[in-house]
Amino acid sequence: MFKIPRGTRDFTPEEMQRRRFVEGIMRNTFIVFGYKEIQTPTFENLELFKAKSGDTIIDELYTFTDKGGRDLALRPELTAPVIRFYVDKLQMEPKPLKLFYFGNCYRYDRPQRGRYREFMQAGCEIIGTDTTEAYAELIAMAYKILENVGIKNLVLNIGNLNILSSIFSRFNLSKDQQKYLTPLIDKSLFEDVFTALIDFGIKNEEARNLIEILKTSDIKKFENLLNDTASKKELLELKKITDTLKKSFEIKNFQIKLSIVRGIDYYKGLVFEIEAPSLGAEKQLCGGGAYELISLFGGKDTPTAGFAIGFDRTILALEQENFPFPTSKLNVFIIPVNEEMISKSLEITQNLRKKGILTDVDLLRRGISKSLKYASSINTTKVIIVGPKELEQDSVTIRDMMTGKQEIVKIKNIQKMY
Amino acid sequence: MFKIPRGTRDFTPEEMQRRRFVEGIMRNTFIVFGYKEIQTPTFENLELFKAKSGDTIIDELYTFTDKGGRDLALRPELTAPVIRFYVDKLQMEPKPLKLFYFGNCYRYDRPQRGRYREFMQAGCEIIGTDTTEAYAELIAMAYKILENVGIKNLVLNIGNLNILSSIFSRFNLSKDQQKYLTPLIDKSLFEDVFTALIDFGIKNEEARNLIEILKTSDIKKFENLLNDTASKKELLELKKITDTLKKSFEIKNFQIKLSIVRGIDYYKGLVFEIEAPSLGAEKQLCGGGAYELISLFGGKDTPTAGFAIGFDRTILALEQENFPFPTSKLNVFIIPVNEEMISKSLEITQNLRKKGILTDVDLLRRGISKSLKYASSINTTKVIIVGPKELEQDSVTIRDMMTGKQEIVKIKNIQKMY
Repeated sequence: MFKIPRGTRDFTPEEMQRRRFVEGIMRNTFIVFGYKEIQTPTFENLELFKAKSGDTIIDELYTFTDKGGRDLALRPELTAPVIRFYVDKLQMEPKPLKLFYFGNCYRYDRPQRGRYREFMQAGCEIIGTDTTEAYAELIAMAYKILENVGIKNLVLNIGNLNILSSIFSRFNLSKDQQKYLTPLIDKSLFEDVFTALIDFGIKNEEARNLIEILKTSDIKKFENLLNDTASKKELLELKKITDTLKKSFEIKNFQIKLSIVRGIDYYKGLVFEIEAPSLGAEKQLCGGGAYELISLFGGKDTPTAGFAIGFDRTILALEQENFPFPTSKLNVFIIPVNEEMISKSLEITQNLRKKGILTDVDLLRRGISKSLKYASSINTTKVIIVGPKELEQDSVTIRDMMTGKQEIVKIKNIQKMY
Repeated sequence: MFKIPRGTRDFTPEEMQRRRFVEGIMRNTFIVFGYKEIQTPTFENLELFKAKSGDTIIDELYTFTDKGGRDLALRPELTAPVIRFYVDKLQMEPKPLKLFYFGNCYRYDRPQRGRYREFMQAGCEIIGTDTTEAYAELIAMAYKILENVGIKNLVLNIGNLNILSSIFSRFNLSKDQQKYLTPLIDKSLFEDVFTALIDFGIKNEEARNLIEILKTSDIKKFENLLNDTASKKELLELKKITDTLKKSFEIKNFQIKLSIVRGIDYYKGLVFEIEAPSLGAEKQLCGGGAYELISLFGGKDTPTAGFAIGFDRTILALEQENFPFPTSKLNVFIIPVNEEMISKSLEITQNLRKKGILTDVDLLRRGISKSLKYASSINTTKVIIVGPKELEQDSVTIRDMMTGKQEIVKIKNIQKMY
C-alpha cells in the first residue's frame, strides 16, 4: 500500500464541500471590494524567494533542480510570485491595481495541528497607493472576509513597524541587539525585553517607556510617550486608518499593538494580524501590511500592501466554533426494478439533471431493497422506483425518504415537483 | 528582473475569469451527475507513479528528494493519487463511489501550444461498477461537460482494447511485435501496419481484415469480421453502451474506433477520447476508459473507470471557436471630489458592497477628471461623484458611463437603482 507524503492531506467529499463553500465566500468578498483574481505557477526560480527572504529561507523550502539544471522551489508564499508577475507583465495597468489569489504553498516544516507541508493561502496585494483610506479598506476587507465566512470570535491587531524602528534607532541599538529583541517583543516577553534593554545600556526610565509603548493599546498614551517627529507622523496616519475603519467600515473590534514585529526587514510601516482565539497556539489566521518588493525585483517603485489568510486554519477555526456548514443532499435516486427498466430510468435521470436537479441512478443492478439502502446511506431526499406495472401507465413510484410515504406519479409530472 | 519558470504561466484577471467560468460549469455538471469532489496533494511518493506507469515515467517527472531523504514527484496525472486515496481511506464507502477532481499536474515536457509543464486536469473515477449503463453514463458526462462549457465542434471516439488484444493473441504476436504496432495503429498509419503484419508472417487476408477492423466504425462490419467468442462478447457490450448513449443520453455524435490504443497495458476494455478538431495537432481534450489499479495499490479489486479532461486545452478550444466568454463590469466607481468627502464616499461604497454590488472607490485622491479616466479604463457602468454641495442635500451625482448623462440622487435612494 502506498502512503501519502508526510505533512500533506487528502480531502474527502465532505471536507472539499466545506473548502469550496469557504473559498466561494472569500472570492465573492474580494470581488465585491474591486479585487481581481490572478494565478502564478506552483514553483518559481529559487532565486526569487532568496531575493525576498534571504538565503536562510532555503531550509524551509522544497527545492529541486529540473533536468535543464535550473534551481526551482515550490512556493512558500505568494507575494513574491505576484510581484514577479507584476514587474514582468502588469506594470502598465491602471493604478491602484487590486489583485487577489488562492494558491497552495509548501513549507518543509514539522507537521502539527494547523501546520501542514502543503497548505492553501488566500491573499491579495494592492499596488500603487499608500493613502490611509487604501490601508483602512485593505484591513477592513481582511476582517470582512473572515467575518463573512462565519467566524464569530476574531481579534484584529494593528501595528506600525516604523514607530518601533525609530525608537530602536533613537536608542542607537545595533542590528544584533534588535535581532535579539524582536522575537522577545513578538512573544510579549516584556520582562526579558526590559532586562535586555538595561543590559544594552538603556536608561531605566526610557526602557520602561518602551515597554509601556509595546504593552498599551491606548492611543492617548502613545501620544504622550512618542515624542520624535517621525513617530508622531506615523501615529497620526495610524489614527486616520483606525478612524476610517470605525467610521466607514463599522469595524470597532481592533487593538493597536506596536509589539507586532514579524518581518521587520520586509514590512514598512503598517502591519496587522487577525487571530482566532479558539485555535490556541496556532491562532493567527491573517497577516499583512505595507511592504517594498517591486524595486528589489527590478520594477519601478510604487507603494504596495497586502495580506495572506491561512485557508486551512480558517476551516479549523470554523470547525472549532461548530459552524453549521451546509451539507449536500442528493435530490433524487432512481431505481430500475429490473434490467428492462434501466433505459427508461436513465432517461428520467437525464431529464431531471438537465433541470439542474442533483439526480443519481442505480448503476449496479442490485434490486430495490439494496438500492433503497444505498440511497439512504448517501442521504437522498426522494427515490423514484421505475417498475413495469407503473410504466404501462407512464408512471413511476416516488418515495419520500424522510417520511417513507410513497405515491404514484405520471412521468411528465415529476419535474413539476421541483 | 526575475523570470517565470520555462513552460509555466501567469494568468491575468481576464484569463482567470475565463478559467473560473469554465471550472464552475464543469463542477456543476459533475455534481449534477452525482459525483463528489475530492483533492489529493500536489506531490506523491515517486514509487506511486513508477508502480502505475513503469520506471520510464521518471524522465517526464519533476522529482525531488525531501530533507528526510524521501523520493517525491510532482504528480503527472491524478488517477494514481485518487486510487491511492481510495485504497488508503475510502474502501468502505458505499458503491459505486463517484469521485471528481480539479488539479494541477506537471510534466517535464517540451513546451508548445497546448502543452505546458504545469497544466490543469479535471477528471473523475467511478469505482465499484462495470455495467454498460455505468460506462455509458461516464462517457455521456465527459461529453456533456465539454458541451456545457460551450464547445461546438466535438468528436467522440469509443474503442475497446480487449478486442484488439484478442486479435493480437489470435495472431500470436509477441509483446515486442505488439509494441511496434501500437504507435502505428494509434497514428492511423495503416499501410505501415499492414507491411509490419506481413513481415510478422500474418496471412495477407487476415492482415487486411485487421486493417478493416481498425479503419471502420460500422458495427455491422465488426460483427462480420470479429468471430472469436471473447471479441463477440466485448462487441455486444460496446453496442449496449452506444445504444444507451443514443437512447438515454441523446448523444448520437460518436464513432466506434478500435484503433484507440494508448495505454494498452493500463486500460482494460473500454477506452474513449474526445477531440476538438479546431485545435489541430494537440486536439485531444479528454481521454478515459476502464482500468485496473486498485489491486496493484494493495486494495480489494473492484471495477474502475474514469477520464481526465485537459482544462487548458478546453479553454484554448473555446477561444479557437471564438466563444463569447462573459466579461465582468465594475458596477459603480465612487469619486470623492476632495479629501473631506473621502469618509462619506467610503461609507456609500460599503453600503453598496453589502448588497453584493461590485463597487470601488478612488483610493488615490486624484480628483474628478483623472478618476473618471480611471473608471472608464476599468470598464465601469456608473460613477458616483460625492461633492460638498450635493452632500448638503444628502445627495450625490450619478453619471452613466455609457451615455454620459448625470443626475442628482438622494443617497438613501442609490440602492434602489440596483
